[in-house]
Amino acid sequence: MANPVYVAVDWGTSSFRLWLIGKDGRILGERRSGEGMTTAAKTGFADVLASHLAALSVPQNVPVIACGMVGAKQGWVEAGYIDVPASISSILTGAVSVADQSRDIRILPGLAQRDKASPDVMRGEETQLLGALGPDSRGLQAVCMPGTHSKWVHVQDGEVIGFSTFMTGELFDAISKHTILSHAVASAEAAQADNSAFKAAVLAAFRQPAMASNLLFTARSGQLLHGLTAAGAQARISGTLIGLEIAGALFDAPNDTPVTLVASGRLQGLYETAFKFLSLKYTVIDADTAVRRGLSAAAEAIWPN
Amino acid sequence: MANPVYVAVDWGTSSFRLWLIGKDGRILGERRSGEGMTTAAKTGFADVLASHLAALSVPQNVPVIACGMVGAKQGWVEAGYIDVPASISSILTGAVSVADQSRDIRILPGLAQRDKASPDVMRGEETQLLGALGPDSRGLQAVCMPGTHSKWVHVQDGEVIGFSTFMTGELFDAISKHTILSHAVASAEAAQADNSAFKAAVLAAFRQPAMASNLLFTARSGQLLHGLTAAGAQARISGTLIGLEIAGALFDAPNDTPVTLVASGRLQGLYETAFKFLSLKYTVIDADTAVRRGLSAAAEAIWPN
Repeated sequence: MANPVYVAVDWGTSSFRLWLIGKDGRILGERRSGEGMTTAAKTGFADVLASHLAALSVPQNVPVIACGMVGAKQGWVEAGYIDVPASISSILTGAVSVADQSRDIRILPGLAQRDKASPDVMRGEETQLLGALGPDSRGLQAVCMPGTHSKWVHVQDGEVIGFSTFMTGELFDAISKHTILSHAVASAEAAQADNSAFKAAVLAAFRQPAMASNLLFTARSGQLLHGLTAAGAQARISGTLIGLEIAGALFDAPNDTPVTLVASGRLQGLYETAFKFLSLKYTVIDADTAVRRGLSAAAEAIWPN
Repeated sequence: MANPVYVAVDWGTSSFRLWLIGKDGRILGERRSGEGMTTAAKTGFADVLASHLAALSVPQNVPVIACGMVGAKQGWVEAGYIDVPASISSILTGAVSVADQSRDIRILPGLAQRDKASPDVMRGEETQLLGALGPDSRGLQAVCMPGTHSKWVHVQDGEVIGFSTFMTGELFDAISKHTILSHAVASAEAAQADNSAFKAAVLAAFRQPAMASNLLFTARSGQLLHGLTAAGAQARISGTLIGLEIAGALFDAPNDTPVTLVASGRLQGLYETAFKFLSLKYTVIDADTAVRRGLSAAAEAIWPN
């Protein structure tokens, strides 16, 4: 095996992903598990990390760079926040060391937006952002990182000027499972997604965000009155929430602000469909690739060759 | 006891309310229970009604007028819908009889809005509407009936020109119990409502409805960064959803459209606070009074003296 140079860890609330990186960023090994912060806070962060490093036989002198909820107050070591506005490159400089370890382990900080009207925080997505745009991007850009809590970041010439969290994924789950709409979507199968119902709902919520909680109800009334299918109802809920998110994320952005979508899998498909239907200018970068690139940028800044 | 003339029943999904009415609309007796449609569908609608009539010793010749989910497909007898646009007075004429009963029992129809883009239905609220405005109202009016599923009805010269359901109450429950915000509101007590946080959230969502799912998240980020209390977080969720509802309900209504609020108790207080803060012109009618008046109007139309 080629010599490993550092280990990169994306350690979120419910997932753990580790890459062993060699010279020139080559991936020498990879580990994935469900030992996110919630689990590791019980079983011990040091033990979880050690078991994965042992599985890949990583020598003791190879350092570790990590990001995500591992740096939260409830995490391993609190890594604090960098307050925005802040340059993307400042993320590279804010890592904290985990004390009393035989190995050099650093955890990257999150971002905080402290203004009274729109307080917000992120942990992990700042590293995806760094990986997606690099530290020296030019012009005005919007970066969309969809998920349980979608994050939208506005960047001007390499500086994060603001960001917003939208509870899209979690609202979708809560609404689909714990409201009257649970009956409407009961027999929906992911394989039979209703693309046209999704697009119509995205557009309706994007154009009239004030009607969001009414548009959600049409998943039920559409079944009562128009025979909407379960897949159609599911698409309507999902489309409404994604359309609402996009409307909010871009409402004060100039037209034609380019969007970078950091996503993968099913979510990537949904957001691409929505962006195309709304004629947004966008590019895509895979979410795993983005976070790994961000971790690598930090590792190279902290441990230059 | 004075002679009873008819019995009025508001029979919803989860509640049963009955009034025994005498000459000139005098209330001679009253019953309330949790035997709504969901329960009565199992134990039998006829038996539930009979037990309450027996408790008030209502003679066999006194007829019954009912409204609400008792007339749904899953109810006692399906009472259908009147399609809007329709005059409020048409509700008076659409009652169906329950067959094979020794007593004359009628159930009022609901309202349906069948257009493809905004399908909607109501059962029970049409009777509140009738009671709140009467059959002959003049001018343009908006009627707000808040609840699990808030209904807003737009009326022009006694005609229902459109209505919308907003899932406000149910979203509040699902979000408060089944998302990350459940931690934020965990220790909130209803007694310690945070009025200023509520008003700020109403205004923020009313002005920028597109930011609704972000404003919800600030119930958490406001705690992380600004020490927002549990009561403040709860007020922020409630205010965001109510502000979003009002924005949607009035977005295409002319300014100064008078609003009739049909509500009681805690919800009445919240909506009055919101309406005042948004400088809306409104009047209030108690929800029970409204439905009883509507049932009485129907009874007098069906069984004129």
